[in-house]
Amino acid sequence: MLTTRLTHVFGIEHPVVLAPMDLVSGARLATAVTTAGGLGLIGGGYGDGEWLKREFAAAAGTRVGCGFITWSLARNPELLDIALEHRPAAVMLSFGDPAPFAGRVRAAAVPLLCQVHTLDQARQALDAGADVVVAQGGEAGGHGVGTRSTFTLIPDVADLIAARSPDTLLMGAGGVADGRGLAGALALGADGVLVGTRFWATEEAVVSARAHARAVAADGDETIRTSVYDIVRSYDWPVEYNGRVLRNRFIDRWHGREADLATHLAEAAAAFKHAVSQQDYDIANMIVGEGVGLIQEILPAGEVVRRMAQDAAARLGEWAPRTAAVSA
Amino acid sequence: MLTTRLTHVFGIEHPVVLAPMDLVSGARLATAVTTAGGLGLIGGGYGDGEWLKREFAAAAGTRVGCGFITWSLARNPELLDIALEHRPAAVMLSFGDPAPFAGRVRAAAVPLLCQVHTLDQARQALDAGADVVVAQGGEAGGHGVGTRSTFTLIPDVADLIAARSPDTLLMGAGGVADGRGLAGALALGADGVLVGTRFWATEEAVVSARAHARAVAADGDETIRTSVYDIVRSYDWPVEYNGRVLRNRFIDRWHGREADLATHLAEAAAAFKHAVSQQDYDIANMIVGEGVGLIQEILPAGEVVRRMAQDAAARLGEWAPRTAAVSA
Repeated sequence: MLTTRLTHVFGIEHPVVLAPMDLVSGARLATAVTTAGGLGLIGGGYGDGEWLKREFAAAAGTRVGCGFITWSLARNPELLDIALEHRPAAVMLSFGDPAPFAGRVRAAAVPLLCQVHTLDQARQALDAGADVVVAQGGEAGGHGVGTRSTFTLIPDVADLIAARSPDTLLMGAGGVADGRGLAGALALGADGVLVGTRFWATEEAVVSARAHARAVAADGDETIRTSVYDIVRSYDWPVEYNGRVLRNRFIDRWHGREADLATHLAEAAAAFKHAVSQQDYDIANMIVGEGVGLIQEILPAGEVVRRMAQDAAARLGEWAPRTAAVSA
Repeated sequence: MLTTRLTHVFGIEHPVVLAPMDLVSGARLATAVTTAGGLGLIGGGYGDGEWLKREFAAAAGTRVGCGFITWSLARNPELLDIALEHRPAAVMLSFGDPAPFAGRVRAAAVPLLCQVHTLDQARQALDAGADVVVAQGGEAGGHGVGTRSTFTLIPDVADLIAARSPDTLLMGAGGVADGRGLAGALALGADGVLVGTRFWATEEAVVSARAHARAVAADGDETIRTSVYDIVRSYDWPVEYNGRVLRNRFIDRWHGREADLATHLAEAAAAFKHAVSQQDYDIANMIVGEGVGLIQEILPAGEVVRRMAQDAAARLGEWAPRTAAVSA
C-alpha cells in the first residue's frame, strides 16, 4: 500500500522496521514484525553471544536482521561474526563510529543500517558507506544523544543525503508510535521508520505484564532523558549519551543529583537490582519514549504493523483531493 | 490548495501562521504573511505599549493578530486592552496559565490561541476555552519547557482534543521550516502550523543582516536550550522555562556554569549589552530553533508562505497514487 524506496530495496510490504531493543527484541518479536510485512531486527544490545545464537536459531526460516551497540561491540567484535553467519537481512550499528565494522558487513553483502542522532553522526555514517541512515530524535526511548528531534533531524539528514549520497535510504526514528508517526516521517522526507516503544508494547516483546500495564497508563509527559540508570548499572556509556525512560520515584530522587548517587552507588545499585527482580517500576527502569502516551493497549506486533501502515496510507491518501490542484 | 479546518475557520488561504516573536514580528512581517495568504501575529512580547500601538497602526488595513508572554502580560494587563482595541484576528497567549485573560479575549469575540509545551498545559488551555491549541515542541527557537517534541506532542494533543473538545483546532509548532514540516505536522494531526525561525529569516523580520548571515551558515546541530541569556538579561522566567538559541562562544563559556555566571553577572551583562549593540553574535543571542539548518537563504516572507504551502501540497499529493488501494 505504502510503497517507498525502503520497501522496494528490502522487498518488504510496509516501510516499518523493528528497533533492535536489547533483550526486548528477541526472535518472537522480530519474526512477528517480518511476518506482518515489516522487517524485524533482533537486539544484539550489550552483547551476549549465546543469547544471539539462540534468537537467530529461533528465527530460522524468517528473514530478520540484528542491531548492535557499537561501542559495546568493539569489546566483543566476535558478535558480529555470529550475526553475519546467520545471513541477517540487515545489520544496524548505533552509538559509535560504524567505520571499524562497516567493511565486514558490506563484504558479507548485508545491508548496513547506521543509526544517528545528529547531522555530524549522519556524515560519519555516510563516510562509512551506510546503506540506510536511521535518523533518531531525542523523543525515542532508550539511549541517544538527545540534542536533536525527529521532526527536524529527518529533513536535515534528507538534505545531507540528497547532496552527498542520493541512493542512501533514510529512516526516521523516535516517537513513531502509530500511523500518524509513519505518515509524518514520510512527509518529512524519510523512506520508512524504525519503531521501538510501540513494539515494546506488544504481546511478543520480552516485557513484563506489569511494565506493560504501567506504559498503557502513562502519558507522553511522563518520560525523561537521564543518566541515572547508566550510573546505577555501571554502564560505560560515552559521556554524550543518555537515555529516555519513564519517570518514577527513583528518577525523582536521583536525577539532577548524579554526584550524590555516585557516592551512594552500592546501596542504590542493590535497590535497583532488587527492584528489577521484583518488577517494581517505582525503582526499576522502563525504557520507553515520548510515544508511550499514544499507546492505549498491548497488541500483537503484526497488528501494530498493519494498523500503522493502513492508517498512514489512509491519512496520506486523504490529502489527495485537497491537493488535486497541484497535480493537475 | 491545502485546505484544513484552520483555513476554513480563519478564512485564510494557507494553514501557516507567523509566530509572534518579540520585536522580530512587527507590522511589516505580520502583514507580509497575511497578504501572502497566511496569518500574521505581531509579537507583543515582554510588553511595550507604545511599540504595540505603533505596529498595530502600521498594520492597519491588513488582518493581523497579536501574541503575548502570559506571565509578563500579568504585570502589564493593559497591553491586552491595546490589542483588543485594534480588533486583532487572534490573540495568542504563551508561557503561563491563560485563564486570567481568556474571558476578556472571548468577550471581545476574538479567537484565542493558547501555546502549550506539554499535555498538562494543553489540558489547561482547553479549560480556559482556547479556540486553537498550539502544540510547540522543544525544537522551537526561543522559550518553552523543552521536555516534549513536536513529533509526539501533536498527536498527543490531537488525541486530547478529540476526547475533550473536538471543535478546538490544533496547530503544530517547533521545527516547521519548510513544506516538509508543514506536511509532516498535518500528517501528524495538526490543522496548521505556527512558524518562527523560518520567518525570522525573511527580509521583513526585524533582524540584522549579520544575524541572518550567521543563521544561513548554521546547521541544525548548532542550537541549544539554555537559561544563560535569561540570567544575563535578568529576566524573571518561571523556572520550568528555558530558551533555544544558536550556540556561540558565550554559551560555550557559561552554559552549565550558571551559578558561576550569577556571581559574575554585572560583568557578563555589560559584555552582553555591548555585544548586542555591536551585533557581535559570538556573545549576543540569536534566537533560532533546530529548523535553522533547513534555511539556505533569506527570502521575502510571502515567498516563504507560498513555497511552504506549495511544497507541502505537492508532497502530500504525491502519496495519492501510492495510497489508491486504500481509497478504492
